[in-house]
Amino acid sequence: MRIGKQDQPYTAICTSDAESITVRGRDLCEDIIGKFDFSSYFWLLVTGEEPNEDQSFFLNAVLCALAEHGLVPSVVAARMTLAAAPEAVQGAVAAGLLGCGSVVLGSAEIAGKFYHDCVTDQRASGDAVDMVARRKIAEWRAHTKAVPGFGHPQHSEGDPRANLLLKLADERGVSGEHVAMMRALQAALPEAIGRALPVNVNGPIPAIMLDLGWPLAALKGIGLLCRTGGLIGHLTEEAERPIGFVMSGAAAGAISYDGE
Amino acid sequence: MRIGKQDQPYTAICTSDAESITVRGRDLCEDIIGKFDFSSYFWLLVTGEEPNEDQSFFLNAVLCALAEHGLVPSVVAARMTLAAAPEAVQGAVAAGLLGCGSVVLGSAEIAGKFYHDCVTDQRASGDAVDMVARRKIAEWRAHTKAVPGFGHPQHSEGDPRANLLLKLADERGVSGEHVAMMRALQAALPEAIGRALPVNVNGPIPAIMLDLGWPLAALKGIGLLCRTGGLIGHLTEEAERPIGFVMSGAAAGAISYDGE
Amino acid sequence: MRIGKQDQPYTAICTSDAESITVRGRDLCEDIIGKFDFSSYFWLLVTGEEPNEDQSFFLNAVLCALAEHGLVPSVVAARMTLAAAPEAVQGAVAAGLLGCGSVVLGSAEIAGKFYHDCVTDQRASGDAVDMVARRKIAEWRAHTKAVPGFGHPQHSEGDPRANLLLKLADERGVSGEHVAMMRALQAALPEAIGRALPVNVNGPIPAIMLDLGWPLAALKGIGLLCRTGGLIGHLTEEAERPIGFVMSGAAAGAISYDGE
Amino acid sequence: MRIGKQDQPYTAICTSDAESITVRGRDLCEDIIGKFDFSSYFWLLVTGEEPNEDQSFFLNAVLCALAEHGLVPSVVAARMTLAAAPEAVQGAVAAGLLGCGSVVLGSAEIAGKFYHDCVTDQRASGDAVDMVARRKIAEWRAHTKAVPGFGHPQHSEGDPRANLLLKLADERGVSGEHVAMMRALQAALPEAIGRALPVNVNGPIPAIMLDLGWPLAALKGIGLLCRTGGLIGHLTEEAERPIGFVMSGAAAGAISYDGE
Repeated sequence: MRIGKQDQPYTAICTSDAESITVRGRDLCEDIIGKFDFSSYFWLLVTGEEPNEDQSFFLNAVLCALAEHGLVPSVVAARMTLAAAPEAVQGAVAAGLLGCGSVVLGSAEIAGKFYHDCVTDQRASGDAVDMVARRKIAEWRAHTKAVPGFGHPQHSEGDPRANLLLKLADERGVSGEHVAMMRALQAALPEAIGRALPVNVNGPIPAIMLDLGWPLAALKGIGLLCRTGGLIGHLTEEAERPIGFVMSGAAAGAISYDGE
Repeated sequence: MRIGKQDQPYTAICTSDAESITVRGRDLCEDIIGKFDFSSYFWLLVTGEEPNEDQSFFLNAVLCALAEHGLVPSVVAARMTLAAAPEAVQGAVAAGLLGCGSVVLGSAEIAGKFYHDCVTDQRASGDAVDMVARRKIAEWRAHTKAVPGFGHPQHSEGDPRANLLLKLADERGVSGEHVAMMRALQAALPEAIGRALPVNVNGPIPAIMLDLGWPLAALKGIGLLCRTGGLIGHLTEEAERPIGFVMSGAAAGAISYDGE
Repeated sequence: MRIGKQDQPYTAICTSDAESITVRGRDLCEDIIGKFDFSSYFWLLVTGEEPNEDQSFFLNAVLCALAEHGLVPSVVAARMTLAAAPEAVQGAVAAGLLGCGSVVLGSAEIAGKFYHDCVTDQRASGDAVDMVARRKIAEWRAHTKAVPGFGHPQHSEGDPRANLLLKLADERGVSGEHVAMMRALQAALPEAIGRALPVNVNGPIPAIMLDLGWPLAALKGIGLLCRTGGLIGHLTEEAERPIGFVMSGAAAGAISYDGE
Repeated sequence: MRIGKQDQPYTAICTSDAESITVRGRDLCEDIIGKFDFSSYFWLLVTGEEPNEDQSFFLNAVLCALAEHGLVPSVVAARMTLAAAPEAVQGAVAAGLLGCGSVVLGSAEIAGKFYHDCVTDQRASGDAVDMVARRKIAEWRAHTKAVPGFGHPQHSEGDPRANLLLKLADERGVSGEHVAMMRALQAALPEAIGRALPVNVNGPIPAIMLDLGWPLAALKGIGLLCRTGGLIGHLTEEAERPIGFVMSGAAAGAISYDGE
């Protein structure tokens, strides 16, 4: 990467001429097409580095874990949008992605920033992990109620995706500082909030991906990419078996007018 | 799939309860996470079937071929949008996808519909492939100038991605009726338009994918998914080395005011 | 306007320097702010001309007629999007606008193009208006079932907005060729489709606006502008009295899983 | 408005039956169409109250002041998007709005929140306005450099729109606590930051609108509505005199590849 001021007009991602396309310093046709799976190429695009076997395995695993969870709000919005504007599939995908915000899909990013902050504090202070966890939860709860990565409205006994991802991370030996901190935070919950909570999928995903070297700034991109895949599945079904207007009718029917 | 009228309120994609998530009839945690690569899971989400080895290989190959081609208009729009609204990465991705329309990324879909129509005609008429190709090009050019899948503004001597994908399809024995029709259309071009043209990437992608059984209705979804990956690469770079406002300044500077 | 090829890099809308902003040849501060109502300024922005009194009156009237009709699909999608991504109001507005497509809000544009085509035919052929109407309906129904501008799922006895706008147009003497053609089309319906249908709001709006000189290419912009106003009303309410997740729950609850 | 918990499934904006449409307790056809200008209707939609003459005058004035400022990033993004996806005008408008974020159009909202906070502090403390201004600037600059509402990259000697809006507010006697606080903040700048700065358009707009009773939560909606009008002007021009691809070419041409 060049050293220089922020506004230097450079990109390090891609260039092309009449005969070839160069991506991250590699020839797209010689080195990538037919040799990379798409997730590994996504790792290269985002980080500039080729993933190792574990990085590739877990990026695929978390993309599969988050891509689809039924008729969540973003899917509902996307299918309604396609019903109303079938000429533009890209518009329906965009409408769905616009609902992947801080409340719904942003939790993994928020959790990742919090765990990263806890790990940074632990490295700087040298304090024991469980002490840091207790201290950071107290700080966090001074401004926000829910500690990110724990509890799930539907999977109240534990999110099966979260448990599986942690098991895989332990088995393959990739669990590191961020996973350890996530577990210390979980262990500190009963004292801090009065009850234990299971991890949800937004805990292990950032913890494992940060331990594997995925950039914090690109955590949200994982959810956005795989949800795009889920949305395209739903929009293909919507084109064949439409339910968009049935759903908007049911939504409107649940609300009453109370204007004067 | 259920038989029933179009508006039957059903989805066949996903359901969940407190303990498990079921996708396309499979248990997400037992059967998919850690076992599927993301592209193969995308195939399952869209079609309801698990891909075979060739289907998975070529879906990965075309996703890699289309994900990134430098500072194309949708990437420029997305990076400007992030510069102006850094609080919402999802908005910048959405802005980029909205530029994946009929002119820019829609060509693969348009080509796919045309090749599918040609193959359908050939099956119905029993005419020779090259005769059908000549007839359908004449019909097509009655309303539209460019025959989709041929010629490229930059790669005028041939698009290296297109040539590689065709070579791989031939080597692995997956080239079928749609690839044959695409080649017959290409062979008919000199007589029809007065000159030969090389295939571009939007010819082999739909031809190969249709030969492999990918649904016509989901052709556009391939481009939308992989461009999302490319956009996230660019937006991660934009957050670290911003060029969005430099680019919007250069864009505005290229235009003069000629109002009265 | 300059004469020149399409890609001449000019804009006639706005330029500015350190002291002033010039819009459509007028000084924004001297000539517009405090002197124009916003709708009249919108007319100037789109057409380059200041509206006369009738043009301004009816643009305001149709913007008011179309801005709000309760929890229609685009409003439902926008409110769900704000609930999921409260950090980006612009994203929720965008999600709502993406559902203003060919099926939902595009009818006014489709009707406008059809009426314009009928009027052009009538001018060229010199045939009687009712003869043209019968001929064009027959042509139209060769490819599309519903004749645009007539019938409404809810307002089956007549759309009160449509009737009022026509009454105002007649009273103020602005009804011209397009309104006459719309009425001739309506009169021809019983013979053509076997029953009479009332006009809906998407008939008079394009007919009156085209009679007043509004450009065909900007018809869709009327709906997009005023729906933005309606969306902002709903999103302000959503921020205070949220119903987005209640609606997405009701929508999902209306659908059953029928995967294998 | 109903008293009740947040998630009560009610809306106070609109209801309709076969014969009529009721908006904010008024009959759309009897009371609004042909009687309200669109800006006044927008005030009613957002607040539930009809505007008085000053409220209507200034809402129109600020909508005109903000609608258009040439080829700003959101306009550039929207025109590129239409060039690439001409089938969906709504997508191009959406892409433009997605760039109306915290950096570009959000300043009016940020300034409004800051001025509102200053006025709240002044009311609570009873301290003199200039003392509160000095104190709040010091607090603000502990976390953010630029004080919102002052300075402009292009209009360095003063933003003509800002000066005009303030003059109109003084003349019509609507300047109140928020305008006074904005002026006190401006007066405190030389001591706080070492130099005087002129007000820009994002100072008076929130100050005047808050003094007139416009809700803080809907400040951003003003910019989003009027920019939609500006975008539609540009997109109508783009359809006739395209510059979208010229601009994306110029943008990409300003950037070099520096990957390894």
